[in-house]
Amino acid sequence: MTETSPSLFHDRKTIEQVEEGNELAPKFDEQGLISCITTDHASGEVLMLGYMNQEALSKTIETGEAHYWSRSRKTLWHKGKTSGLVQQVIEMRIDDDQDAIWLAVKVLGSGASCHVGYRSCFYRRVPVGQDREQQADLVFTEQTKVFEPEDVYGDAPNPTIL
Amino acid sequence: MTETSPSLFHDRKTIEQVEEGNELAPKFDEQGLISCITTDHASGEVLMLGYMNQEALSKTIETGEAHYWSRSRKTLWHKGKTSGLVQQVIEMRIDDDQDAIWLAVKVLGSGASCHVGYRSCFYRRVPVGQDREQQADLVFTEQTKVFEPEDVYGDAPNPTIL
Repeated sequence: MTETSPSLFHDRKTIEQVEEGNELAPKFDEQGLISCITTDHASGEVLMLGYMNQEALSKTIETGEAHYWSRSRKTLWHKGKTSGLVQQVIEMRIDDDQDAIWLAVKVLGSGASCHVGYRSCFYRRVPVGQDREQQADLVFTEQTKVFEPEDVYGDAPNPTIL
Repeated sequence: MTETSPSLFHDRKTIEQVEEGNELAPKFDEQGLISCITTDHASGEVLMLGYMNQEALSKTIETGEAHYWSRSRKTLWHKGKTSGLVQQVIEMRIDDDQDAIWLAVKVLGSGASCHVGYRSCFYRRVPVGQDREQQADLVFTEQTKVFEPEDVYGDAPNPTIL
């Protein structure tokens, strides 16, 4: 948290408060992070799974634009600041035990959210059950990239960690 | 992994393989878990954020029914086995760096996915930006529970951890 911004969060006191109350009392994990599911507000498509620290969650609430904690760059990440693909929050929700956030967003610019260049980070399907026979492991669901990563990010290091 | 089931997963070798290939090479974290976003296949609503270990992910792929790792009970969790609220996987996807799963599911029984009794675990909205003025922290988006937890779970311990 920055010193100028008073905490938006309540202490976690009881299960009833956390599950059934109207106090925002998020649970950050040992790394100080909370998971954030981001979906397209119109299509419902899941765009990405990100992580927020206290500052990122506070800034998202205060500004209405998605901020995350970049685990690869270890820095606050105002999504779209480099690429123009800002995520305007249409609705934010929190889950029962308040350890996960759901953002329904409108993506500005070309509408992409994935650093590989696709609209969604979830551009490959995993066949399951009876659908598995005779198929490759993964099936691409997006055929063309919305942007070429090199054009947007230049030679910045790829965030994927093996 | 059980000994009788050969691994469905490839080793992670290169960023190109992981991001642009068709090999399933999921990344499990230090606890051996991968995050799983579960949505309703028809409405697009986010139902829950769960976690899978290798066995849970394998069983989900093999059976087409969602299996998770219960972090509170520390056991494999065939969702709905107790409550009847089985999640049939309509589509499984994996993200760019293969450290997150998205399941679009059809929920059997009463259609609820949340242990508190609501349809979705995300039954409270967090007002953001200009919407924040004069509002309580959280606003309920579901008014009535689909089931009463006591009727389904009896006196089993609540999984929420403060």
